[in-house]
Amino acid sequence: MNSRTQNKTRSSEAAKISDATVKRLSKYYRTLQSAIGSNKVTISSEEIARINGLTAAQVRKDLSFFGAFGRRGLGYNVADLHRNISRILGLHRTWNVCIVGVGNIGRALVRFKQFQEQGFYIKLIMDSDSAKWGQTVGDLTIENSEDCKELVRREKIRIAIVAVPASAAQRVVDRLVDAGIKAILNFAPVSIFAPPGVYVRNENMAIEIESLSFALTNKSRK
Amino acid sequence: MNSRTQNKTRSSEAAKISDATVKRLSKYYRTLQSAIGSNKVTISSEEIARINGLTAAQVRKDLSFFGAFGRRGLGYNVADLHRNISRILGLHRTWNVCIVGVGNIGRALVRFKQFQEQGFYIKLIMDSDSAKWGQTVGDLTIENSEDCKELVRREKIRIAIVAVPASAAQRVVDRLVDAGIKAILNFAPVSIFAPPGVYVRNENMAIEIESLSFALTNKSRK
Repeated sequence: MNSRTQNKTRSSEAAKISDATVKRLSKYYRTLQSAIGSNKVTISSEEIARINGLTAAQVRKDLSFFGAFGRRGLGYNVADLHRNISRILGLHRTWNVCIVGVGNIGRALVRFKQFQEQGFYIKLIMDSDSAKWGQTVGDLTIENSEDCKELVRREKIRIAIVAVPASAAQRVVDRLVDAGIKAILNFAPVSIFAPPGVYVRNENMAIEIESLSFALTNKSRK
Repeated sequence: MNSRTQNKTRSSEAAKISDATVKRLSKYYRTLQSAIGSNKVTISSEEIARINGLTAAQVRKDLSFFGAFGRRGLGYNVADLHRNISRILGLHRTWNVCIVGVGNIGRALVRFKQFQEQGFYIKLIMDSDSAKWGQTVGDLTIENSEDCKELVRREKIRIAIVAVPASAAQRVVDRLVDAGIKAILNFAPVSIFAPPGVYVRNENMAIEIESLSFALTNKSRK
Protein backbone atom coordinates (compact mmCIF):
# COMPACT_ATOMS: atom_id res chain seq x y z
CA MET A 1 0.00 0.00 0.00
CA ASN A 2 1.43 3.28 -1.15
CA SER A 3 1.04 6.38 0.98
CA ARG A 4 0.71 8.91 -1.84
CA THR A 5 -2.63 10.39 -2.79
CA GLN A 6 -3.07 10.68 -6.49
CA ASN A 7 -6.36 11.69 -8.03
CA LYS A 8 -5.98 11.16 -11.73
CA THR A 9 -7.05 7.93 -13.37
CA ARG A 10 -4.30 6.18 -15.21
CA SER A 11 -5.83 6.44 -18.64
CA SER A 12 -3.83 3.78 -20.41
CA GLU A 13 -4.71 1.24 -17.75
CA ALA A 14 -8.40 2.11 -17.52
CA ALA A 15 -9.00 0.60 -20.94
CA LYS A 16 -7.63 -2.77 -19.89
CA ILE A 17 -9.42 -3.48 -16.66
CA SER A 18 -11.76 -6.43 -16.46
CA ASP A 19 -15.53 -6.48 -16.16
CA ALA A 20 -15.11 -8.07 -12.74
CA THR A 21 -13.06 -5.09 -11.55
CA VAL A 22 -15.64 -2.63 -12.91
CA LYS A 23 -18.38 -4.49 -11.02
CA ARG A 24 -16.37 -4.30 -7.82
CA LEU A 25 -15.84 -0.56 -8.34
CA SER A 26 -19.65 -0.21 -8.60
CA LYS A 27 -19.92 -1.93 -5.24
CA TYR A 28 -17.24 0.25 -3.64
CA TYR A 29 -19.12 3.25 -5.00
CA ARG A 30 -22.25 2.13 -3.12
CA THR A 31 -20.23 1.54 0.04
CA LEU A 32 -18.85 5.09 -0.23
CA GLN A 33 -22.32 6.53 -0.87
CA SER A 34 -23.56 5.03 2.36
CA ALA A 35 -20.36 6.12 4.18
CA ILE A 36 -21.11 9.71 3.05
CA GLY A 37 -24.67 9.23 4.31
CA SER A 38 -23.27 8.38 7.76
CA ASN A 39 -20.83 11.33 7.69
CA LYS A 40 -17.70 9.17 7.67
CA VAL A 41 -14.56 11.07 6.67
CA THR A 42 -12.17 8.17 6.08
CA ILE A 43 -12.60 4.50 5.32
CA SER A 44 -10.05 1.68 5.35
CA SER A 45 -9.58 -0.98 2.69
CA GLU A 46 -10.46 -3.49 5.43
CA GLU A 47 -13.87 -1.85 6.00
CA ILE A 48 -14.65 -1.67 2.28
CA ALA A 49 -13.60 -5.31 1.97
CA ARG A 50 -15.69 -6.52 4.89
CA ILE A 51 -18.87 -4.79 3.64
CA ASN A 52 -18.43 -6.34 0.19
CA GLY A 53 -17.24 -9.79 1.22
CA LEU A 54 -13.77 -9.36 -0.31
CA THR A 55 -10.19 -9.23 0.91
CA ALA A 56 -8.54 -5.90 1.78
CA ALA A 57 -5.74 -6.81 -0.65
CA GLN A 58 -8.27 -7.10 -3.48
CA VAL A 59 -9.77 -3.69 -2.63
CA ARG A 60 -6.34 -2.04 -2.51
CA LYS A 61 -5.34 -3.64 -5.80
CA ASP A 62 -8.56 -2.51 -7.55
CA LEU A 63 -8.22 1.04 -6.28
CA SER A 64 -4.49 1.37 -6.95
CA PHE A 65 -5.29 0.53 -10.56
CA PHE A 66 -6.92 3.96 -10.75
CA GLY A 67 -4.21 5.73 -8.86
CA ALA A 68 -6.18 5.93 -5.60
CA PHE A 69 -3.95 5.15 -2.66
CA GLY A 70 -5.00 5.19 0.96
CA ARG A 71 -2.72 6.36 3.74
CA ARG A 72 -1.41 3.67 6.01
CA GLY A 73 -3.34 3.75 9.26
CA LEU A 74 -5.74 6.40 7.97
CA GLY A 75 -7.35 4.76 4.96
CA TYR A 76 -9.02 6.59 2.12
CA ASN A 77 -10.73 9.95 2.21
CA VAL A 78 -14.37 9.03 1.59
CA ALA A 79 -15.35 12.12 -0.44
CA ASP A 80 -12.24 11.95 -2.65
CA LEU A 81 -12.58 8.26 -3.35
CA HIS A 82 -16.32 8.63 -4.04
CA ARG A 83 -15.62 11.42 -6.54
CA ASN A 84 -12.83 9.44 -8.23
CA ILE A 85 -14.86 6.28 -8.65
CA SER A 86 -17.83 8.32 -9.81
CA ARG A 87 -15.71 9.76 -12.66
CA ILE A 88 -14.21 6.39 -13.55
CA LEU A 89 -17.66 4.82 -13.84
CA GLY A 90 -19.09 7.79 -15.70
CA LEU A 91 -21.54 8.53 -12.89
CA HIS A 92 -20.58 12.21 -12.54
CA ARG A 93 -22.94 12.93 -15.45
CA THR A 94 -26.34 11.67 -16.62
CA TRP A 95 -27.07 9.26 -19.44
CA ASN A 96 -30.22 9.03 -21.55
CA VAL A 97 -31.39 5.46 -21.98
CA CYS A 98 -34.01 3.75 -24.16
CA ILE A 99 -35.66 0.38 -23.71
CA VAL A 100 -36.73 -1.71 -26.69
CA GLY A 101 -39.28 -4.40 -25.84
CA VAL A 102 -41.88 -3.53 -23.21
CA GLY A 103 -42.73 -7.03 -21.95
CA ASN A 104 -42.32 -8.20 -18.36
CA ILE A 105 -38.60 -7.49 -18.12
CA GLY A 106 -38.88 -4.18 -19.99
CA ARG A 107 -41.64 -2.99 -17.66
CA ALA A 108 -39.68 -4.05 -14.59
CA LEU A 109 -36.68 -2.06 -15.84
CA VAL A 110 -38.73 1.08 -16.57
CA ARG A 111 -39.84 1.04 -12.94
CA PHE A 112 -36.40 0.24 -11.52
CA LYS A 113 -35.73 3.35 -9.41
CA GLN A 114 -31.99 2.82 -8.97
CA PHE A 115 -31.32 3.61 -12.63
CA GLN A 116 -32.45 7.20 -12.20
CA GLU A 117 -30.77 7.53 -8.80
CA GLN A 118 -27.43 6.68 -10.47
CA GLY A 119 -27.99 9.10 -13.36
CA PHE A 120 -29.46 6.74 -15.96
CA TYR A 121 -32.65 8.38 -17.28
CA ILE A 122 -35.02 6.21 -19.27
CA LYS A 123 -36.33 8.66 -21.84
CA LEU A 124 -37.84 6.38 -24.47
CA ILE A 125 -39.57 2.99 -24.54
CA MET A 126 -40.38 1.20 -27.79
CA ASP A 127 -42.08 -1.98 -28.89
CA SER A 128 -42.83 -3.56 -32.27
CA ASP A 129 -46.35 -4.56 -31.14
CA SER A 130 -48.80 -1.95 -32.47
CA ALA A 131 -51.29 -2.90 -29.73
CA LYS A 132 -48.87 -1.39 -27.19
CA TRP A 133 -48.21 1.92 -28.98
CA GLY A 134 -49.63 4.85 -27.03
CA GLN A 135 -49.89 2.85 -23.77
CA THR A 136 -48.09 4.42 -20.84
CA VAL A 137 -45.65 2.87 -18.36
CA GLY A 138 -44.88 5.33 -15.58
CA ASP A 139 -44.40 8.70 -17.29
CA LEU A 140 -43.48 7.23 -20.66
CA THR A 141 -45.56 6.37 -23.72
CA ILE A 142 -44.69 3.24 -25.69
CA GLU A 143 -43.46 4.20 -29.16
CA ASN A 144 -43.14 2.25 -32.40
CA SER A 145 -39.69 0.65 -32.54
CA GLU A 146 -39.69 1.19 -36.32
CA ASP A 147 -39.18 4.88 -35.54
CA CYS A 148 -36.10 4.03 -33.47
CA LYS A 149 -33.57 6.02 -35.49
CA GLU A 150 -35.48 9.30 -35.37
CA LEU A 151 -36.54 8.89 -31.71
CA VAL A 152 -33.08 7.92 -30.42
CA ARG A 153 -31.57 10.97 -32.08
CA ARG A 154 -34.31 13.32 -30.90
CA GLU A 155 -33.96 12.15 -27.28
CA LYS A 156 -30.15 12.11 -27.42
CA ILE A 157 -30.01 8.50 -26.23
CA ARG A 158 -26.57 6.96 -25.72
CA ILE A 159 -27.42 3.66 -24.01
CA ALA A 160 -30.05 1.10 -25.06
CA ILE A 161 -31.56 -1.80 -23.15
CA VAL A 162 -32.84 -4.62 -25.35
CA ALA A 163 -35.59 -6.77 -23.80
CA VAL A 164 -37.16 -8.37 -26.87
CA PRO A 165 -37.53 -12.10 -27.71
CA ALA A 166 -34.42 -13.90 -28.96
CA SER A 167 -35.70 -14.02 -32.55
CA ALA A 168 -35.96 -10.22 -32.77
CA ALA A 169 -32.82 -9.26 -30.84
CA GLN A 170 -30.21 -8.97 -33.60
CA ARG A 171 -32.57 -6.97 -35.85
CA VAL A 172 -33.26 -4.55 -32.99
CA VAL A 173 -29.54 -4.22 -32.23
CA ASP A 174 -28.73 -3.49 -35.88
CA ARG A 175 -31.34 -0.74 -35.87
CA LEU A 176 -30.01 0.74 -32.62
CA VAL A 177 -26.46 0.75 -33.96
CA ASP A 178 -27.71 2.45 -37.10
CA ALA A 179 -29.33 5.09 -34.88
CA GLY A 180 -25.96 5.79 -33.26
CA ILE A 181 -26.27 3.83 -30.00
CA LYS A 182 -22.83 3.02 -28.55
CA ALA A 183 -23.67 0.80 -25.57
CA ILE A 184 -26.26 -1.96 -25.27
CA LEU A 185 -27.45 -4.01 -22.30
CA ASN A 186 -29.05 -7.10 -23.84
CA PHE A 187 -31.62 -9.12 -21.89
CA ALA A 188 -32.76 -11.16 -24.91
CA PRO A 189 -31.75 -14.78 -24.27
CA VAL A 190 -29.31 -14.91 -27.20
CA SER A 191 -25.85 -13.47 -27.82
CA ILE A 192 -25.97 -10.45 -30.08
CA PHE A 193 -23.27 -8.85 -32.16
CA ALA A 194 -22.41 -5.24 -32.78
CA PRO A 195 -19.61 -3.59 -34.75
CA PRO A 196 -16.36 -2.47 -33.07
CA GLY A 197 -16.89 0.68 -31.05
CA VAL A 198 -20.28 -0.46 -29.77
CA TYR A 199 -20.10 -1.98 -26.31
CA VAL A 200 -22.50 -4.87 -25.67
CA ARG A 201 -23.26 -6.57 -22.40
CA ASN A 202 -25.35 -9.72 -22.64
CA GLU A 203 -27.46 -10.40 -19.55
CA ASN A 204 -29.02 -13.82 -19.57
CA MET A 205 -31.06 -14.77 -16.52
CA ALA A 206 -30.78 -18.47 -17.38
CA ILE A 207 -26.99 -18.21 -17.43
CA GLU A 208 -27.05 -16.51 -14.03
CA ILE A 209 -29.06 -19.31 -12.50
CA GLU A 210 -26.73 -21.92 -14.02
CA SER A 211 -23.92 -20.58 -11.88
CA LEU A 212 -26.04 -21.64 -8.91
CA SER A 213 -26.61 -25.18 -10.17
CA PHE A 214 -22.87 -25.33 -10.93
CA ALA A 215 -22.10 -24.32 -7.35
CA LEU A 216 -24.55 -26.84 -5.89
CA THR A 217 -23.32 -29.61 -8.16
CA ASN A 218 -19.64 -29.04 -7.44
CA LYS A 219 -20.00 -28.14 -3.79
CA SER A 220 -19.31 -31.62 -2.49
CA ARG A 221 -15.95 -31.52 -4.23
CA LYS A 222 -14.67 -28.54 -2.30
CA MET B 1 -4.34 -28.79 -27.66
CA ASN B 2 -4.13 -32.32 -26.42
CA SER B 3 -5.38 -35.18 -28.59
CA ARG B 4 -6.67 -37.37 -25.78
CA THR B 5 -10.34 -37.62 -25.02
CA GLN B 6 -11.07 -37.68 -21.37
CA ASN B 7 -14.57 -37.52 -20.01
CA LYS B 8 -14.22 -37.09 -16.32
CA THR B 9 -14.26 -33.70 -14.72
CA ARG B 10 -11.18 -32.93 -12.72
CA SER B 11 -12.88 -32.60 -9.39
CA SER B 12 -10.22 -30.74 -7.49
CA GLU B 13 -10.05 -28.09 -10.19
CA ALA B 14 -13.82 -27.69 -10.60
CA ALA B 15 -14.03 -26.04 -7.22
CA LYS B 16 -11.54 -23.36 -8.19
CA ILE B 17 -12.82 -22.13 -11.50
CA SER B 18 -14.01 -18.56 -11.78
CA ASP B 19 -17.53 -17.23 -12.30
CA ALA B 20 -16.40 -15.92 -15.67
CA THR B 21 -15.43 -19.45 -16.76
CA VAL B 22 -18.76 -20.85 -15.57
CA LYS B 23 -20.59 -18.18 -17.60
CA ARG B 24 -18.60 -19.10 -20.69
CA LEU B 25 -19.40 -22.80 -20.15
CA SER B 26 -23.10 -21.82 -20.11
CA LYS B 27 -22.59 -20.15 -23.48
CA TYR B 28 -20.73 -23.14 -24.95
CA TYR B 29 -23.59 -25.30 -23.70
CA ARG B 30 -26.04 -23.22 -25.75
CA THR B 31 -23.77 -23.39 -28.79
CA LEU B 32 -23.70 -27.19 -28.46
CA GLN B 33 -27.47 -27.35 -28.04
CA SER B 34 -27.95 -25.55 -31.33
CA ALA B 35 -25.22 -27.70 -32.95
CA ILE B 36 -27.20 -30.79 -31.89
CA GLY B 37 -30.31 -29.15 -33.36
CA SER B 38 -28.52 -28.87 -36.72
CA ASN B 39 -27.24 -32.48 -36.51
CA LYS B 40 -23.58 -31.51 -36.31
CA VAL B 41 -21.32 -34.37 -35.13
CA THR B 42 -18.12 -32.43 -34.38
CA ILE B 43 -17.33 -28.82 -33.64
CA SER B 44 -13.97 -27.04 -33.50
CA SER B 45 -12.79 -24.66 -30.80
CA GLU B 46 -12.61 -22.05 -33.58
CA GLU B 47 -16.33 -22.44 -34.34
CA ILE B 48 -17.32 -22.29 -30.67
CA ALA B 49 -15.10 -19.22 -30.29
CA ARG B 50 -16.51 -17.40 -33.30
CA ILE B 51 -20.14 -17.93 -32.25
CA ASN B 52 -19.39 -16.58 -28.78
CA GLY B 53 -17.06 -13.75 -29.72
CA LEU B 54 -14.02 -15.31 -28.00
CA THR B 55 -10.63 -16.67 -29.03
CA ALA B 56 -10.17 -20.38 -29.80
CA ALA B 57 -7.36 -20.46 -27.22
CA GLN B 58 -9.81 -19.28 -24.54
CA VAL B 59 -12.31 -21.98 -25.50
CA ARG B 60 -9.66 -24.71 -25.45
CA LYS B 61 -8.37 -23.49 -22.10
CA ASP B 62 -11.85 -23.44 -20.53
CA LEU B 63 -12.68 -26.92 -21.80
CA SER B 64 -9.32 -28.49 -20.94
CA PHE B 65 -10.00 -27.39 -17.37
CA PHE B 66 -12.67 -30.06 -17.28
CA GLY B 67 -10.62 -32.68 -19.04
CA ALA B 68 -12.38 -32.21 -22.40
CA PHE B 69 -9.85 -32.27 -25.20
CA GLY B 70 -10.68 -32.02 -28.89
CA ARG B 71 -8.76 -33.94 -31.54
CA ARG B 72 -6.50 -31.85 -33.71
CA GLY B 73 -8.16 -31.32 -37.08
CA LEU B 74 -11.40 -32.98 -35.91
CA GLY B 75 -12.50 -30.87 -33.01
CA TYR B 76 -14.86 -31.97 -30.27
CA ASN B 77 -17.60 -34.55 -30.45
CA VAL B 78 -20.74 -32.44 -30.05
CA ALA B 79 -22.83 -34.99 -28.10
CA ASP B 80 -19.97 -35.87 -25.72
CA LEU B 81 -19.08 -32.27 -25.01
CA HIS B 82 -22.75 -31.34 -24.53
CA ARG B 83 -23.19 -34.15 -22.03
CA ASN B 84 -20.00 -33.24 -20.17
CA ILE B 85 -20.84 -29.56 -19.84
CA SER B 86 -24.39 -30.45 -18.86
CA ARG B 87 -23.05 -32.50 -15.93
CA ILE B 88 -20.55 -29.83 -14.94
CA LEU B 89 -23.26 -27.17 -14.82
CA GLY B 90 -25.72 -29.47 -13.07
CA LEU B 91 -28.13 -29.35 -16.02
CA HIS B 92 -28.45 -33.14 -16.34
CA ARG B 93 -31.08 -32.97 -13.58
CA THR B 94 -33.89 -30.61 -12.60
CA TRP B 95 -33.92 -28.06 -9.79
CA ASN B 96 -36.91 -26.76 -7.86
CA VAL B 97 -36.81 -22.99 -7.46
CA CYS B 98 -38.81 -20.47 -5.43
CA ILE B 99 -39.18 -16.74 -5.94
CA VAL B 100 -39.63 -14.39 -3.00
CA GLY B 101 -41.07 -11.00 -3.98
CA VAL B 102 -43.66 -10.95 -6.73
CA GLY B 103 -43.19 -7.40 -8.02
CA ASN B 104 -42.22 -6.48 -11.58
CA ILE B 105 -38.94 -8.40 -11.62
CA GLY B 106 -40.45 -11.40 -9.80
CA ARG B 107 -43.32 -11.59 -12.28
CA ALA B 108 -40.95 -11.30 -15.24
CA LEU B 109 -38.88 -14.18 -13.84
CA VAL B 110 -41.92 -16.42 -13.24
CA ARG B 111 -42.74 -16.06 -16.93
CA PHE B 112 -39.17 -16.48 -18.16
CA LYS B 113 -39.48 -19.66 -20.26
CA GLN B 114 -35.77 -20.43 -20.48
CA PHE B 115 -35.62 -21.37 -16.80
CA GLN B 116 -37.87 -24.36 -17.30
CA GLU B 117 -36.22 -25.29 -20.61
CA GLN B 118 -32.90 -25.60 -18.75
CA GLY B 119 -34.39 -27.65 -15.92
CA PHE B 120 -35.12 -24.91 -13.38
CA TYR B 121 -38.72 -25.33 -12.26
CA ILE B 122 -40.33 -22.47 -10.39
CA LYS B 123 -42.52 -24.31 -7.91
CA LEU B 124 -43.31 -21.64 -5.36
CA ILE B 125 -43.79 -17.86 -5.34
CA MET B 126 -44.11 -15.87 -2.14
CA ASP B 127 -44.68 -12.28 -1.08
CA SER B 128 -45.05 -10.49 2.25
CA ASP B 129 -47.94 -8.37 0.94
CA SER B 130 -51.20 -9.98 2.10
CA ALA B 131 -53.07 -8.26 -0.75
CA LYS B 132 -51.17 -10.54 -3.18
CA TRP B 133 -51.77 -13.85 -1.38
CA GLY B 134 -53.98 -16.15 -3.43
CA GLN B 135 -53.38 -14.21 -6.69
CA THR B 136 -52.05 -16.33 -9.54
CA VAL B 137 -49.11 -15.72 -11.84
CA GLY B 138 -49.08 -18.31 -14.61
CA ASP B 139 -49.86 -21.64 -12.91
CA LEU B 140 -48.69 -20.53 -9.48
CA THR B 141 -50.50 -18.99 -6.54
CA ILE B 142 -48.74 -16.33 -4.49
CA GLU B 143 -48.11 -17.62 -0.96
CA ASN B 144 -47.32 -15.87 2.30
CA SER B 145 -43.55 -15.53 2.66
CA GLU B 146 -43.96 -15.99 6.42
CA ASP B 147 -44.68 -19.65 5.62
CA CYS B 148 -41.38 -19.92 3.75
CA LYS B 149 -39.80 -22.65 5.88
CA GLU B 150 -42.70 -25.06 5.63
CA LEU B 151 -43.37 -24.36 1.91
CA VAL B 152 -39.71 -24.63 0.84
CA ARG B 153 -39.43 -28.01 2.56
CA ARG B 154 -42.71 -29.30 1.20
CA GLU B 155 -41.81 -28.35 -2.39
CA LYS B 156 -38.22 -29.62 -2.03
CA ILE B 157 -36.80 -26.28 -3.18
CA ARG B 158 -33.00 -26.01 -3.50
CA ILE B 159 -32.59 -22.62 -5.21
CA ALA B 160 -34.24 -19.31 -4.29
CA ILE B 161 -34.56 -16.09 -6.25
CA VAL B 162 -34.91 -12.97 -4.10
CA ALA B 163 -36.68 -10.04 -5.77
CA VAL B 164 -37.78 -7.98 -2.78
CA PRO B 165 -36.92 -4.34 -1.91
CA ALA B 166 -33.45 -3.69 -0.48
CA SER B 167 -34.80 -3.12 3.03
CA ALA B 168 -36.36 -6.60 3.19
CA ALA B 169 -33.63 -8.59 1.44
CA GLN B 170 -31.45 -9.72 4.34
CA ARG B 171 -34.44 -10.78 6.44
CA VAL B 172 -35.77 -12.84 3.52
CA VAL B 173 -32.35 -14.43 2.96
CA ASP B 174 -32.03 -15.35 6.64
CA ARG B 175 -35.43 -17.05 6.48
CA LEU B 176 -34.51 -18.92 3.28
CA VAL B 177 -31.25 -20.13 4.81
CA ASP B 178 -33.19 -21.27 7.87
CA ALA B 179 -35.47 -23.22 5.53
CA GLY B 180 -32.46 -25.06 4.09
CA ILE B 181 -31.90 -23.13 0.84
CA LYS B 182 -28.32 -23.55 -0.42
CA ALA B 183 -28.19 -21.20 -3.42
CA ILE B 184 -29.65 -17.72 -3.84
CA LEU B 185 -29.91 -15.42 -6.83
CA ASN B 186 -30.45 -11.95 -5.36
CA PHE B 187 -32.05 -9.20 -7.44
CA ALA B 188 -32.58 -6.88 -4.47
CA PRO B 189 -30.37 -3.81 -5.00
CA VAL B 190 -28.22 -4.52 -1.96
CA SER B 191 -25.49 -7.04 -1.17
CA ILE B 192 -26.76 -9.81 1.05
CA PHE B 193 -24.89 -12.21 3.26
CA ALA B 194 -25.34 -15.89 3.91
CA PRO B 195 -23.38 -18.38 6.02
CA PRO B 196 -20.62 -20.55 4.52
CA GLY B 197 -22.09 -23.35 2.44
CA VAL B 198 -24.81 -21.13 0.97
CA TYR B 199 -23.93 -19.81 -2.46
CA VAL B 200 -25.15 -16.27 -3.21
CA ARG B 201 -25.11 -14.45 -6.50
CA ASN B 202 -26.01 -10.77 -6.34
CA GLU B 203 -27.59 -9.45 -9.54
CA ASN B 204 -27.86 -5.71 -9.58
CA MET B 205 -29.30 -4.15 -12.73
CA ALA B 206 -27.81 -0.76 -11.80
CA ILE B 207 -24.35 -2.30 -11.55
CA GLU B 208 -24.80 -3.91 -14.96
CA ILE B 209 -25.64 -0.59 -16.57
CA GLU B 210 -22.66 1.07 -14.89
CA SER B 211 -20.35 -1.17 -16.89
CA LEU B 212 -21.83 0.53 -19.97
CA SER B 213 -21.21 4.05 -18.69
CA PHE B 214 -17.70 2.92 -17.72
CA ALA B 215 -17.12 1.69 -21.27
CA LEU B 216 -18.49 4.88 -22.83
CA THR B 217 -16.52 7.09 -20.45
CA ASN B 218 -13.22 5.29 -21.00
CA LYS B 219 -13.66 4.56 -24.69
CA SER B 220 -11.78 7.64 -25.87
CA ARG B 221 -8.76 6.48 -23.91
CA LYS B 222 -8.37 3.23 -25.83
